[in-house]
Amino acid sequence: MEFTANYLAQILNGDVEGDGKVTVSDFSKIEEGKSGTISFLANPIYNKYIYSTSSNIVIVNKNLVLEKKVSPTLIRVDNAYEAFAELLNIYNSLKNSKQGIEQPSFIAEDVRIDDSVYIGAFTYIAKNVKIGKNVKIYPNCYIAENTEIKDNTTINSGVKIYSDCKIGANCTVHSGVIIGGDGFGFAPQKNNDYKKVPQIGNVIIEDNVEIGANTTIDRATIGSTIIRKGVKLDNLVQVAHNVEIGENTVIAAQSGIAGSAKIGKACMIGGQVGIVGHVTIADEVKIAAQSGIAKSIKQKGTVYQGSPAFGIFDYQKSLVVFKNLPQIIKQIDAIEKKIQN
Amino acid sequence: MEFTANYLAQILNGDVEGDGKVTVSDFSKIEEGKSGTISFLANPIYNKYIYSTSSNIVIVNKNLVLEKKVSPTLIRVDNAYEAFAELLNIYNSLKNSKQGIEQPSFIAEDVRIDDSVYIGAFTYIAKNVKIGKNVKIYPNCYIAENTEIKDNTTINSGVKIYSDCKIGANCTVHSGVIIGGDGFGFAPQKNNDYKKVPQIGNVIIEDNVEIGANTTIDRATIGSTIIRKGVKLDNLVQVAHNVEIGENTVIAAQSGIAGSAKIGKACMIGGQVGIVGHVTIADEVKIAAQSGIAKSIKQKGTVYQGSPAFGIFDYQKSLVVFKNLPQIIKQIDAIEKKIQN
Amino acid sequence: MEFTANYLAQILNGDVEGDGKVTVSDFSKIEEGKSGTISFLANPIYNKYIYSTSSNIVIVNKNLVLEKKVSPTLIRVDNAYEAFAELLNIYNSLKNSKQGIEQPSFIAEDVRIDDSVYIGAFTYIAKNVKIGKNVKIYPNCYIAENTEIKDNTTINSGVKIYSDCKIGANCTVHSGVIIGGDGFGFAPQKNNDYKKVPQIGNVIIEDNVEIGANTTIDRATIGSTIIRKGVKLDNLVQVAHNVEIGENTVIAAQSGIAGSAKIGKACMIGGQVGIVGHVTIADEVKIAAQSGIAKSIKQKGTVYQGSPAFGIFDYQKSLVVFKNLPQIIKQIDAIEKKIQN
Repeated sequence: MEFTANYLAQILNGDVEGDGKVTVSDFSKIEEGKSGTISFLANPIYNKYIYSTSSNIVIVNKNLVLEKKVSPTLIRVDNAYEAFAELLNIYNSLKNSKQGIEQPSFIAEDVRIDDSVYIGAFTYIAKNVKIGKNVKIYPNCYIAENTEIKDNTTINSGVKIYSDCKIGANCTVHSGVIIGGDGFGFAPQKNNDYKKVPQIGNVIIEDNVEIGANTTIDRATIGSTIIRKGVKLDNLVQVAHNVEIGENTVIAAQSGIAGSAKIGKACMIGGQVGIVGHVTIADEVKIAAQSGIAKSIKQKGTVYQGSPAFGIFDYQKSLVVFKNLPQIIKQIDAIEKKIQN
Repeated sequence: MEFTANYLAQILNGDVEGDGKVTVSDFSKIEEGKSGTISFLANPIYNKYIYSTSSNIVIVNKNLVLEKKVSPTLIRVDNAYEAFAELLNIYNSLKNSKQGIEQPSFIAEDVRIDDSVYIGAFTYIAKNVKIGKNVKIYPNCYIAENTEIKDNTTINSGVKIYSDCKIGANCTVHSGVIIGGDGFGFAPQKNNDYKKVPQIGNVIIEDNVEIGANTTIDRATIGSTIIRKGVKLDNLVQVAHNVEIGENTVIAAQSGIAGSAKIGKACMIGGQVGIVGHVTIADEVKIAAQSGIAKSIKQKGTVYQGSPAFGIFDYQKSLVVFKNLPQIIKQIDAIEKKIQN
Repeated sequence: MEFTANYLAQILNGDVEGDGKVTVSDFSKIEEGKSGTISFLANPIYNKYIYSTSSNIVIVNKNLVLEKKVSPTLIRVDNAYEAFAELLNIYNSLKNSKQGIEQPSFIAEDVRIDDSVYIGAFTYIAKNVKIGKNVKIYPNCYIAENTEIKDNTTINSGVKIYSDCKIGANCTVHSGVIIGGDGFGFAPQKNNDYKKVPQIGNVIIEDNVEIGANTTIDRATIGSTIIRKGVKLDNLVQVAHNVEIGENTVIAAQSGIAGSAKIGKACMIGGQVGIVGHVTIADEVKIAAQSGIAKSIKQKGTVYQGSPAFGIFDYQKSLVVFKNLPQIIKQIDAIEKKIQN
């Protein structure tokens, strides 16, 4: 796809400065600008690059003052960053505009698929699955019995969803995500072995959730594992059975939430964090990367670090001392010597 | 599926108290009881919910004494928890009773498939694979050459098993599990790059093993990576080449075992634990979540914590002091001041 | 496949000692030698096993002096380890010699596939994908639009590659790997929720890279996430958007690299390491397992440990004190008592 500066300016409600007929087919950062691409300039720190960039078009703020002539065509808009993001979004939705059912795919007889839906080849849709409008399910997915996927949700290639789960509207589920696998529940027996506790609940994912590649979300033992609306999970995150994650909470890659933990709203959880089972985390709590949460956090908006974690301010103070421990030992030994004399 | 209280009481060898014709089609916890569901009451702490629950049927112990009238139909049995678990098991096996070969699937010519087996669509069974009775292999799986899967094992959707591996009987392998990928072995060369060490061993998984979603188990360099009978691995666990995990050991999510480590029987390993290569862990050892095991653990039944880990009792004591370090520094400074005067 | 000692000696340019007609069909370690297999003996520590092994053939160094008679046939070569590795390589390439397009597969009309290529059943090749010579793409893969895969690369079963990515020559990508999923970028909005930042860059993987099972590599927001030539990534590694990993760097299982971090050449990064976003790691840096890197590491060849990490030598000293903290507290209390008297 190739676009002229004039055409893009029209979409963005901006003014062209320079050759309006120049065309671009891709995006680049202004500091890495390449021929055939469009960039943006919003942060004044990057102003210098406008004089050297090879981008053919740069979106700039209306009030940008140039110190000398520039080679790219400019599109002047009210907010250059937002205009650029809007272009990216338009580009992405053009790119992902697939519809129709590819063959071979496996769709159980009782499943009704709206014309607006895309089902990729080698995808399996089991009995009694319900699929909303504009849903895209890419190739090699498996959607088991009774699962429901609401409008405008995208399921990328290779996602597996076990039976009876509910996926909200406007969600994006990335490749390799497993939703609804059995919770890790085993009752110890007398002879050291285990008896599986049947896991017959499900997973409920509300609207506007994004789930990163190869993340796993287990079904509840009974009831539901719940991901509330607006939650963003990064790649390789583990969500155990009966967990509930509150609205708009963000969890970075490789973190794990053990069984029945309840995470509040608008929390920010760093990468590789572990949270033990059955705890409650208050709203707006922040947890530093690699921390281990062993107890409930009751105060809203607090910040934790460490494994096991405590308040980040106290943790940082202890950490400073930890680094100095060999020095402190010398200090103690010196004191001891002194008082022995 | 809908069942009457009378029918369920007959299965459970229990006595109906109330309307035997009431029907249920799902399960719920008594404290979250919903119309159309069956719950159980075993722990006296939950006794109060029997008076308010909306469940239509509750399984209770024979000796439960009611303080007032209740609305659900009761089924009185010897052990309410076990009776409930039995129902869950029956429900699950009814639900997962698939048989036959769905099309399109790819089955090599020399593979014999018993009538009791289920092979889902888009599953690939390569040459010389052996599949036992009642095995279920869900859609989108890949089972490479010479692999063997014994009776009653369930391979969920999207599992990939490389060539020459052996999977025991009564195992459950969850979606996205990769068995038999190459071990991470590279010989350093003079110019900073690496030469791959061929990985020509296999993976042996014994009977009654459960493997969680997206877990990876690498094949041995030579010989076998071995998962002994009764082992339970949670989601996103990494098992490297030539590891051996002893009978009935349980490993929680996101833990990783490096190459040639040998884990004992009946160990319990928490989430996000790391174990370095070539160590031996004694039987019945417990390791706290996020711990790092850098050396062999020789004493049976010991409990470890920390990264690097040591005995949990000592670790906890050091940890208490760690939290107080800023306070202790003040104490030392005060002493220093005092003795300088 | 079955081979005589005479035949193998000819391949390895070695001398047969004993029955040259004995045959083997598999490999084993000398200390675990089994009938029907070939082993090697290079390290003198293992010399004793040559008298007891059940292997039928053992490759040994030319200068090995025997103390008594041995039962296996020997093949004497200049370097027993290298000769054995060569046999493994030959075996592996014989085993993985598939060619042709299996059905059903999905190949877009404009994709040209060389006769030397293998495409497994249920694999999906989208529009404008370019595939080099001798490429093997196993069953159940998904290769999206405009992606390029160069000569001699193997893509194992179940790999998903999003659009516009570039995979170099001689790479091995293991099952379940996800390349090119969206970076984790969300702009916070006023009402606590998030707006997705479109991720329109790609992933570039250079030549001779190996990527372990279920590893995830996100596409760049703009520009490219880059894995330089010779890099080896183990299983379940997370590489975020706009990361660059330098030539010949090796990263063990379950490590995670956050967005825009730049890792140098020939680094060695242990398992379960976390590296925060936007840092730079110098060449030849080593990072111990489970460490957390919170700041750039500027000095080439340094070794780090801890979470947060600092120089391994200082870390180890602090760690020793950490273990002794309860003892040190007693020491301080004793001092305090003494000076109070």
